[in-house]
Amino acid sequence: MQEGSQIKVGVLGATGTVGQRFLTLLSSHPWFTIDAIGASSRSANQKYYKVVKWKQTTPIPAGVRDMIVKECLPANFSDCDIVFSGLDADVAGDIEADFRSAEMAVFSNAKNYRRDPHVPLIVPLVNPSHLAIIPQQRSLHAPPLSKGFIVTNANCSTTGYVVPLAALEKAFGPIEACMVTTMQAISGAGYPGLPSMDIIDNVVPYISGEEEKMEWETLKILGGITDSDGGLKAFDMHARHPLRVSASCNRVPVIDGHTECVSIRFAKRPPPSPQQVREALVAFTPDAQALGCPSAPRHAIVVHEEPDRPQPRLDRYYQDGSGVHVGRVRQCQVLDIKFVLLANNVSIGAATSSVINAELAVIKGVINPTAGST
Amino acid sequence: MQEGSQIKVGVLGATGTVGQRFLTLLSSHPWFTIDAIGASSRSANQKYYKVVKWKQTTPIPAGVRDMIVKECLPANFSDCDIVFSGLDADVAGDIEADFRSAEMAVFSNAKNYRRDPHVPLIVPLVNPSHLAIIPQQRSLHAPPLSKGFIVTNANCSTTGYVVPLAALEKAFGPIEACMVTTMQAISGAGYPGLPSMDIIDNVVPYISGEEEKMEWETLKILGGITDSDGGLKAFDMHARHPLRVSASCNRVPVIDGHTECVSIRFAKRPPPSPQQVREALVAFTPDAQALGCPSAPRHAIVVHEEPDRPQPRLDRYYQDGSGVHVGRVRQCQVLDIKFVLLANNVSIGAATSSVINAELAVIKGVINPTAGST
Amino acid sequence: MQEGSQIKVGVLGATGTVGQRFLTLLSSHPWFTIDAIGASSRSANQKYYKVVKWKQTTPIPAGVRDMIVKECLPANFSDCDIVFSGLDADVAGDIEADFRSAEMAVFSNAKNYRRDPHVPLIVPLVNPSHLAIIPQQRSLHAPPLSKGFIVTNANCSTTGYVVPLAALEKAFGPIEACMVTTMQAISGAGYPGLPSMDIIDNVVPYISGEEEKMEWETLKILGGITDSDGGLKAFDMHARHPLRVSASCNRVPVIDGHTECVSIRFAKRPPPSPQQVREALVAFTPDAQALGCPSAPRHAIVVHEEPDRPQPRLDRYYQDGSGVHVGRVRQCQVLDIKFVLLANNVSIGAATSSVINAELAVIKGVINPTAGST
Amino acid sequence: MQEGSQIKVGVLGATGTVGQRFLTLLSSHPWFTIDAIGASSRSANQKYYKVVKWKQTTPIPAGVRDMIVKECLPANFSDCDIVFSGLDADVAGDIEADFRSAEMAVFSNAKNYRRDPHVPLIVPLVNPSHLAIIPQQRSLHAPPLSKGFIVTNANCSTTGYVVPLAALEKAFGPIEACMVTTMQAISGAGYPGLPSMDIIDNVVPYISGEEEKMEWETLKILGGITDSDGGLKAFDMHARHPLRVSASCNRVPVIDGHTECVSIRFAKRPPPSPQQVREALVAFTPDAQALGCPSAPRHAIVVHEEPDRPQPRLDRYYQDGSGVHVGRVRQCQVLDIKFVLLANNVSIGAATSSVINAELAVIKGVINPTAGST
Repeated sequence: MQEGSQIKVGVLGATGTVGQRFLTLLSSHPWFTIDAIGASSRSANQKYYKVVKWKQTTPIPAGVRDMIVKECLPANFSDCDIVFSGLDADVAGDIEADFRSAEMAVFSNAKNYRRDPHVPLIVPLVNPSHLAIIPQQRSLHAPPLSKGFIVTNANCSTTGYVVPLAALEKAFGPIEACMVTTMQAISGAGYPGLPSMDIIDNVVPYISGEEEKMEWETLKILGGITDSDGGLKAFDMHARHPLRVSASCNRVPVIDGHTECVSIRFAKRPPPSPQQVREALVAFTPDAQALGCPSAPRHAIVVHEEPDRPQPRLDRYYQDGSGVHVGRVRQCQVLDIKFVLLANNVSIGAATSSVINAELAVIKGVINPTAGST
Repeated sequence: MQEGSQIKVGVLGATGTVGQRFLTLLSSHPWFTIDAIGASSRSANQKYYKVVKWKQTTPIPAGVRDMIVKECLPANFSDCDIVFSGLDADVAGDIEADFRSAEMAVFSNAKNYRRDPHVPLIVPLVNPSHLAIIPQQRSLHAPPLSKGFIVTNANCSTTGYVVPLAALEKAFGPIEACMVTTMQAISGAGYPGLPSMDIIDNVVPYISGEEEKMEWETLKILGGITDSDGGLKAFDMHARHPLRVSASCNRVPVIDGHTECVSIRFAKRPPPSPQQVREALVAFTPDAQALGCPSAPRHAIVVHEEPDRPQPRLDRYYQDGSGVHVGRVRQCQVLDIKFVLLANNVSIGAATSSVINAELAVIKGVINPTAGST
Repeated sequence: MQEGSQIKVGVLGATGTVGQRFLTLLSSHPWFTIDAIGASSRSANQKYYKVVKWKQTTPIPAGVRDMIVKECLPANFSDCDIVFSGLDADVAGDIEADFRSAEMAVFSNAKNYRRDPHVPLIVPLVNPSHLAIIPQQRSLHAPPLSKGFIVTNANCSTTGYVVPLAALEKAFGPIEACMVTTMQAISGAGYPGLPSMDIIDNVVPYISGEEEKMEWETLKILGGITDSDGGLKAFDMHARHPLRVSASCNRVPVIDGHTECVSIRFAKRPPPSPQQVREALVAFTPDAQALGCPSAPRHAIVVHEEPDRPQPRLDRYYQDGSGVHVGRVRQCQVLDIKFVLLANNVSIGAATSSVINAELAVIKGVINPTAGST
Repeated sequence: MQEGSQIKVGVLGATGTVGQRFLTLLSSHPWFTIDAIGASSRSANQKYYKVVKWKQTTPIPAGVRDMIVKECLPANFSDCDIVFSGLDADVAGDIEADFRSAEMAVFSNAKNYRRDPHVPLIVPLVNPSHLAIIPQQRSLHAPPLSKGFIVTNANCSTTGYVVPLAALEKAFGPIEACMVTTMQAISGAGYPGLPSMDIIDNVVPYISGEEEKMEWETLKILGGITDSDGGLKAFDMHARHPLRVSASCNRVPVIDGHTECVSIRFAKRPPPSPQQVREALVAFTPDAQALGCPSAPRHAIVVHEEPDRPQPRLDRYYQDGSGVHVGRVRQCQVLDIKFVLLANNVSIGAATSSVINAELAVIKGVINPTAGST
């Protein structure tokens, strides 16, 4: 990015939980300027502060408070090069497609396009290389696009634990089995989300669709891109070294921060020791750091030595929640190595991922801001 | 038990959390009558209600309220055939040994003798057959005992999940691997236990010594008794079919009820289907039921069909917490079968286990109440 | 009640939170038999267990599980002498009126008729004498009724604290000012009620309409019935000795049990001492007890001497939540006496009140069960 | 303060909860430099990070992590002009006296000297004028002191609500009665503080000594200083217009932030309207702001218009918790005006108060940093 240049961005679903996070992050972003915000027609044409049920612990950013909310139509965002989508899944599909067709770069937190064979599912600390699919995404669009595309980020429970998995595959080669049991924060369910009667003094051992998402998304994210028969690129779903993932997802009475107990088996025999694993995690430097993404964490993986860390209440806001935490790296009696993972589901697990993905796309030249925008 | 006969029992550690539970259970027991209660010298010789910090949701039983607390010396419990011990581990070792030496039957919730090669570690819904070691325990004592012995029950996190494991081994043969991730209630840590600052809006992914206990106790409980070289009986630690257990223990902000995500691999190939597993769990009838233990649950394993059950807040008090709950029986992508388990840690996970163990010992004739006691 | 006779009752709004409580209470009631259950047309004509999202800690009563849910039309409840209404306020008005017109006795937990000048607002431990307005309610109906009527119970936050107020007015004469600050449980908001994001680690210092309800209902409940100009009876709203009530209502992260800090000023000078107040509270025996209502608590007001009681988690389920708890009776530096009150909002604060009100109506002969019903 | 000059400060009780807050605040303070940290002899002579059980959500400040903890002896703090005391009350009395005798300025969070007739009890947004008692405190000391003195701050539950009270007395004259019911956070009890078993899903309607502190401290803080008979100055305890305070203190399951329901009666008749009260609160500018204290909040009193605010989880960290929040200003049916107050008990309610008090003392010239210190 050239010094002082600014890219105009829009936020779709701006009144929702993820939208509020986008606005909080973007209001002080060094490259991006919030130009337009969109929500449902019920909120459109009114001042933001009048229609939002603001639930953040910091006030509404001053520059956004009095902005007029627009309907989520591309014409209302014509000055934007990038739109960030915090839309609900029931409307995200059509709206995000419309914005892509209108030649905008869409960074979405919704699940709708995660399984699309031409849309990259990017955890920014793991697989920014998947941006390479975008030219194909554009060319296969009817009509072909020159600038528009969609990038999605992963489910909040997937995002965290694939970071150490990627670090360990880089250091020690393929992982062939992974068991993960999650203890997920209530904020992952949005607002109003879980009724308090269901979760105070309770655990809910089920989150609809979550285990399937984790088991599938992990393969797309940790896999590579291959050339398929027809000359097209395709996500290989970790097929060269099949990876079996078994997830058990639980909701616990924690506000922010997903804790996950992870156990893995490497293909390599003998497997690395716990100490080798710790060292590999500490040494891991994702491209997002090396390339200078302003929202990337300084420490991608914080490795804790205390026996009882990480803990969501104490560790979730470190580095504004942009990194992940690993602790209790030790041998597993059934697989090889087990550890505890913590990731802030509303930061790296959601809006922060989209923002870093956009930073990566800018750095890698996938986005070419319009002259008028800079 | 003969109609109308009563066995006099004592409670050691009567002012503690487990002791309070013993008193609550025993105050309305059809066979047992509370004859003496013991605590530390600090509380001795005072009325119970004056020294206890009562934390149960039911009042102090009327018959106990004004009882005089005694020091935990056998002479103070000379009318008792049975003592139940809710003592802390730092004093339980010596005191329980003294009561055994004084020819009393000791049913202990403490961990001190769980690894003793002559003391049975009994989950009453699983391995009452281990009472068979008691004659040897008595005969090896110096001097040999005619009536005294110690029986321990298991750690609260072990007790629950070995019940379905036992049911499945009975139906389908040996299990060879088990991964378990626990989400344990705060009451498992006693009182005062966890500081509120440490657990509200938090998960603590560590409980000192707990994983080791689960991994070891499971083998003793699910294993058999063999004849060793010197003509002595010994616990075989599931050695005929080695079983690897990997436990990850977490504390969550739940008051009562341990939830556990369990995944198992059978020796048998192909393994049973989820439906076969469900049927075997429903069909499981432990000896404690068949023999008519008054505190045994009617349903040892409640199998839930709803996708989001069991839940601690809704299910932990069913059958006064004397059974266990299993839900979400499904295939595991890494091992064979996974499910969610719930057990009430303060009931079947603690005092209720000791009481049923004592009932079993009475029924099996291991305890012969003194004439004076009945 | 004649030995063995049974009164057939119906429950309206049977799938809701209050309806579930009604069914739990009535399924083991010595006088009442559940004959019909009603809910919205969405649930009608299906088995109860299939349409209810059961949230109680005890299972669905066996006799109710397979009952067919009916639409809330009087014709579907023609065998019932009594219907208990747990309907939401948005539909309760019309439906309850229809059932009254159909000559049924309606005991409602809804707020719709609480301010009706001919409908008694009865806290069963306080003002069953207000049943005296029912003949007038019937005669003013068009056409006049012979059996139908509506009785409401009070808001959950009002119900508890008026019990000690009534006891103290009985002992020491009129109270002229009362300040009450509530800390109310989430179950008072029904289901789904409060989003968990709003109340975990939080206090919400506002409950819509609650303060107004408390300030107004208190006057109707503690006031008498006078003869007004036109020969009609009227509720006097405590007018002979004006009573000023100031309420501040808060929601706290507690599942069941409303805690309230109450301070009062008596008309009588000098006011009674804290010890006199304690004695008057202990001595209070409401008519519901004296008359033998089976659901009335043995101890209407439990007075605690410990400095830190009552506490919702420890005291709310005593006597199945049918009484109230008072603690910390002491002098107030601004008014005369202050104390802490605890009442179980889902028991005496809701369904239990309606059931005792119905028991009172039966005992007092306001309800004459049909021959066919007994 | 001269540009670039620095005052060396020490922290006593540095490993405790309040001490951790002091270190967090002071590590980035524009005027103060942490020169020495003290704790019990058990921790002395070791690196700070090795002896502290750090419970803040930000890491240990880099400059403090490896500092050697000292015993709390004045000789170990000889380079310090100021010491901040987060000592427990059982040791604070003697240690703080020793530091004063050693000519150091002591700003204490402990309760020991709050009732001392020569020690000011200062809420920095309310009564910095009470620093005027310090010359007398010094001169009455044996031997008289030239620099040493003690200033205390108030109890966490007192600190918040006296701010609006002070603002309203300034605008409308004396308040003659005040009723306050608190809902206090668990962090106010320190660490380990409340057992989790006592407060999850619960309210504890009692905090030992808290009500007496609130009722007494309020009078000292809001009162003035008079000349007594012997030519000495004395705190008048609001005696010119007697003020009756009645406090009811409760603990609720909230981590940080005390919420208080406050009702007041003015001497002035007719009293101000709610709107006049709101305007007076917004207009209130404490001296700490006007004088430029770097830690003073920009908005001393944030007045909320939304009906359901302030809420601890959403508002407690605004301005780093250095201001107070008022909402729901409305008429009281018993006194004149009632409102809801929120103050962050660990910030303005504790360490932040001491720091601003020290800033005020520097600005007012009560502290004269030694040449060597700057």
